[in-house]
Amino acid sequence: MEFYYYTLFAGIIAIIYALFAAYITLKKEEGNKKMQEIASAIKAGSAAYLNRQLKTIAIFAVILAILFLFLPNGYEITIAFLTGAIASYLTAYLGMNVAVRANVRTAKIAEKGTNAAFKTAIIGGSVTGFAAVGFGLIGLSLLIMYLTISKVEILIGFGFGASLVSLFARVGGGIYTKAADVGADLVGKTELNLPEDDPRNPAVIADNVGDNVGDCAGMSADVFESYAVTLVAALLIAYGISHASVINFAYPLYVASIGVISSLLALLFINVKGEDATLAIYKGIGSAVIIAAVLDFALTWYLSLPLAYFYSVLSGLVLAILLFWITDYYTGSGKKAVVKVADAAKGGGGTDVIMGLAVGLRTTWFPAVVIAIAILASYLTTKVYNMGLYGIGIAAVGMLSLTATILTIDSFGPITDNAGGIAEMAGLQENVRKVTDKLDAIGNTTKATTKGFAIGGAALSATALFAAFANRVGFSSINALFGYHSTILIIGIFIGAMIPFIFSSFLMEAVGKAANLMVEEVRRQVKTIKGLLQGKAKPDYARAVDIATVNALKSLVIPELIAILTPIVIGLLLGKEALGGLLVGMIPSSFMLALFMANSGATMDNAKKYIEEGHFGGKGSDAHKAAVIGDTVGDPLKDTAGPALNSMIKVVSTISILLAPVFIAYTLL
Amino acid sequence: MEFYYYTLFAGIIAIIYALFAAYITLKKEEGNKKMQEIASAIKAGSAAYLNRQLKTIAIFAVILAILFLFLPNGYEITIAFLTGAIASYLTAYLGMNVAVRANVRTAKIAEKGTNAAFKTAIIGGSVTGFAAVGFGLIGLSLLIMYLTISKVEILIGFGFGASLVSLFARVGGGIYTKAADVGADLVGKTELNLPEDDPRNPAVIADNVGDNVGDCAGMSADVFESYAVTLVAALLIAYGISHASVINFAYPLYVASIGVISSLLALLFINVKGEDATLAIYKGIGSAVIIAAVLDFALTWYLSLPLAYFYSVLSGLVLAILLFWITDYYTGSGKKAVVKVADAAKGGGGTDVIMGLAVGLRTTWFPAVVIAIAILASYLTTKVYNMGLYGIGIAAVGMLSLTATILTIDSFGPITDNAGGIAEMAGLQENVRKVTDKLDAIGNTTKATTKGFAIGGAALSATALFAAFANRVGFSSINALFGYHSTILIIGIFIGAMIPFIFSSFLMEAVGKAANLMVEEVRRQVKTIKGLLQGKAKPDYARAVDIATVNALKSLVIPELIAILTPIVIGLLLGKEALGGLLVGMIPSSFMLALFMANSGATMDNAKKYIEEGHFGGKGSDAHKAAVIGDTVGDPLKDTAGPALNSMIKVVSTISILLAPVFIAYTLL
Repeated sequence: MEFYYYTLFAGIIAIIYALFAAYITLKKEEGNKKMQEIASAIKAGSAAYLNRQLKTIAIFAVILAILFLFLPNGYEITIAFLTGAIASYLTAYLGMNVAVRANVRTAKIAEKGTNAAFKTAIIGGSVTGFAAVGFGLIGLSLLIMYLTISKVEILIGFGFGASLVSLFARVGGGIYTKAADVGADLVGKTELNLPEDDPRNPAVIADNVGDNVGDCAGMSADVFESYAVTLVAALLIAYGISHASVINFAYPLYVASIGVISSLLALLFINVKGEDATLAIYKGIGSAVIIAAVLDFALTWYLSLPLAYFYSVLSGLVLAILLFWITDYYTGSGKKAVVKVADAAKGGGGTDVIMGLAVGLRTTWFPAVVIAIAILASYLTTKVYNMGLYGIGIAAVGMLSLTATILTIDSFGPITDNAGGIAEMAGLQENVRKVTDKLDAIGNTTKATTKGFAIGGAALSATALFAAFANRVGFSSINALFGYHSTILIIGIFIGAMIPFIFSSFLMEAVGKAANLMVEEVRRQVKTIKGLLQGKAKPDYARAVDIATVNALKSLVIPELIAILTPIVIGLLLGKEALGGLLVGMIPSSFMLALFMANSGATMDNAKKYIEEGHFGGKGSDAHKAAVIGDTVGDPLKDTAGPALNSMIKVVSTISILLAPVFIAYTLL
Repeated sequence: MEFYYYTLFAGIIAIIYALFAAYITLKKEEGNKKMQEIASAIKAGSAAYLNRQLKTIAIFAVILAILFLFLPNGYEITIAFLTGAIASYLTAYLGMNVAVRANVRTAKIAEKGTNAAFKTAIIGGSVTGFAAVGFGLIGLSLLIMYLTISKVEILIGFGFGASLVSLFARVGGGIYTKAADVGADLVGKTELNLPEDDPRNPAVIADNVGDNVGDCAGMSADVFESYAVTLVAALLIAYGISHASVINFAYPLYVASIGVISSLLALLFINVKGEDATLAIYKGIGSAVIIAAVLDFALTWYLSLPLAYFYSVLSGLVLAILLFWITDYYTGSGKKAVVKVADAAKGGGGTDVIMGLAVGLRTTWFPAVVIAIAILASYLTTKVYNMGLYGIGIAAVGMLSLTATILTIDSFGPITDNAGGIAEMAGLQENVRKVTDKLDAIGNTTKATTKGFAIGGAALSATALFAAFANRVGFSSINALFGYHSTILIIGIFIGAMIPFIFSSFLMEAVGKAANLMVEEVRRQVKTIKGLLQGKAKPDYARAVDIATVNALKSLVIPELIAILTPIVIGLLLGKEALGGLLVGMIPSSFMLALFMANSGATMDNAKKYIEEGHFGGKGSDAHKAAVIGDTVGDPLKDTAGPALNSMIKVVSTISILLAPVFIAYTLL
């Protein structure tokens, strides 16, 4: 039997599980009328956003699809591209549609205690996780089946399809969620003294929608993309090895298939006992890693491959665990660094942010070192077989084989966040809200730690893409760092290092602007709707949702164009060397910037929570006010700009590989 | 006559001018007893800091000097190293000692109006500028004279000496100045409602000392270092060209010598008419550039060299102007971006900082693009002569040939800042304080814009150093981006991109911590010294000065060790390829981070000033309070972490070149 049948089979299993999990979720009780009302407002807002976003993506996709027809193998590339884009969107669509239904059911079942609610949210979240790997594996297997391996380069189209959707989902979702969140907080908490998720706040539904379109749909598209492009990069690298054999193609796909099994089994180990959220996560990831390691070892042994293959995969698996650990170490609630930031809040908002940024900057060292060690380890082990960068490729696949588990844990976040919101807004009993609050806190931790995985995964898969790019344009023939080409390389490096900064700039600005519009809208409603603050009149939630939607989609365009056009312009003007330099400059610069931003934000968020728990004066104290400022600054850093960089570097990398033949043929200089 | 006699002669002229300018400055009236008292407190604090810093540097320098003795040509390298370190310290010492005397004289002469005060401050500042180029050229010429060109690599020792001092001066000075500034502001302005430079604030003298040790001594060491290492890099590259001739060595030194002349003549054009500070700066830089361009053209023509040489130099000169322009465009007072940040302050401290960071991120694009164009232009023009990266080397020299002018304009800043402080503390008349306030505002602009030059200069000279490094370790023989060495290269790139982040982290944290200690000290004095706030008792200034001094020197150590040890560890563990990767990853990442930090800070600073001018509610409004928070965050970004990165990348680069023979001989992997 051809190897891709196994992969196809693994993909189908994942989808069957996802549908089963969706079925179980939908079967659960929906709660009372008020809860359903709120949930359907969130559902409608989320669906509306995803549909409007789809239209914007469609315009870009159609234009690109037509252009791709002119490439060599253009017809196949276009098919692959559309397959990738559709698979990614399907994942986001299915995952989010279950998530917006799981939220209210989690709130309802919270009556029965923490465990039941936890399970409901995890099962709801697992739909996204397994849909991602399912659609990914099925899409790739079918393409390989029909397009044949010898045209492996066509698969880049699949990766780029995933990249394009991811870029939109991450950027748009990121702007949406933080515009709503910051906007809601600025007026609600600061001016009007309303608690989180108070139904009198007109932006509260938009805030809950934001969790779904950002943390659920955005994140799933991001990780789906890493998953897809990593597999494609590994296949491309395998193709570039002089003594390529079918087994080199099959191996990464097998590892990914094993990921489905290990993630399924790991679901049995994810549970919460007592208060320790971190433990629940470690149990989930830990069991997935151990099961995967055992099975990958067995696979390598069964195929009689050198153990070097297994060691490379293992280095990727270990990397995933270490990235979790370090994110938790620096940004976990109550951790040393977090207390340091909370302590600095005593000096005011300024010192709080200074310390928060300092911690974020600090967090870069460990991921950089472990990713370096993982690359070294994976390389050294495959060195004996003279397999170039193949080791890096399969290490990345090893790490990304955990995708289903990671996305399950991550999508748990927006579900419990929403559940908390619904419980609050529907005025459920104290004991229910205690449960949802606890789950919400766990969800915050899972969201933060999975971000570390997403960033590391993006960096590693972009590195694999770079290797594939270098392979494709024949960089092995550059035999001097001097001379014309090396100057061009340096220029590319400078431009590449700059791209993440300017890209983030537009996102930060977009959040700032959209949040301000949201603030004005909330103020307007408070002023014009009589009895709003007394709870006698209902705010116009839809209007706030609309503002977030319109502004997110409007602010998308410039950053998208920067990501898509920069490699094209550099490639056409300065050629493949500059483009290689661009990738070399961009990937590490973006990796560090993303870590800095995501972790600064997470630390400042948790510092605020630490104060709210009663330290340094507790809620309402000056330190708390200062920490709220830090949290506001951290919001777009951690949920908009930081994560969006993941998608950006992969888009730039995939488009560089995809259009490489064009840049080789036509270059101005 | 040998070419180095001309350079020596140019250096001597510069020193003669510097001494003359110092003489003129010291001859001026010192003002009344109270002014002298304040000035001598600042003087004593500054001198004490510089002396204690010297001791710390001496320990490092002696250890390193002993280690260098074991290198090939160790004896000569050690001499060169000590020469470089001494030349740099002499510059800082002379410059700062005049600056701390020029401040009170500027305050005194302000009675006679803006023009006289402006001239006094400029002449005082020019001592630093001309001392830097003077000691630089004399040191280099003497070394070339006695050590012969064939041992040109020995000159790296000179560059490293300058680097080491610069690292300490930038880091230490940066922490000092912001610990004092933030500390003084946090209690003084926010809690006690005291105006800037109020004599009742115990931290006020420390704040004024900080301007001198940070903006004057720190900046002069930084730019001196760029100047020195750029010349050394150009000489090294010239040495690496296969058909090297004496003229290729002489040319960069001649260009530097012309810089002395053009900067001297440019002094005639720096003057202020009306309120337009930016114009005064443009006149100074503009005239220096035009005169230098004309003379460089004449030189190239006279030497019968291809015009390509001149075009490369010209691209460096133009780059300097463009970096000024862009800094002013984004961070200049009242500019669009600044107003945007001020406008965001209406939403609170959080949105102010979000927008400030967005602007800072945005500012990276233009410098990256123009530096790319300058590199391309300089390369293309020398391409016909097959001179490798020599074009980049002399472009960098062209830019840095403006050093005297830039440092003059920059050192003007702390002098006028101090003059304003002295006028305020001594309670001088309204009309005098109006003059010093105006000059202070001009000084803020000059400090901000020269920072753009320092960052760009550091990036360009580090690039030239990288070229020299690649040359030295024989990278031209790497003939594959694949295989073992390329993996190691990728690892180096990841680590290199991370270094600027972790380095900045320690500096941000140091400022946060030291500022908090300062806050506590000020609070303590306010509580324990009776009649302090009523102006009846004098605060214990010395104690505050001591806190800033001790903490700056204590916080130095870890970042210094990171900068010095990272290249050594990577070089010994992973070899020259990893070290090459380290430089490739570090230089652009650091360049972008430095621009982001420096410009975010400058924008938030000016946004605060814009509000203070009466916009968006003016002083005391909520928007103003928000903008003060942004300014606090911006302070360590723009004056500590951002500028220190300049020194850091040059130290890492010079130490990599210096120890290259060791890494080639001994490497673990």
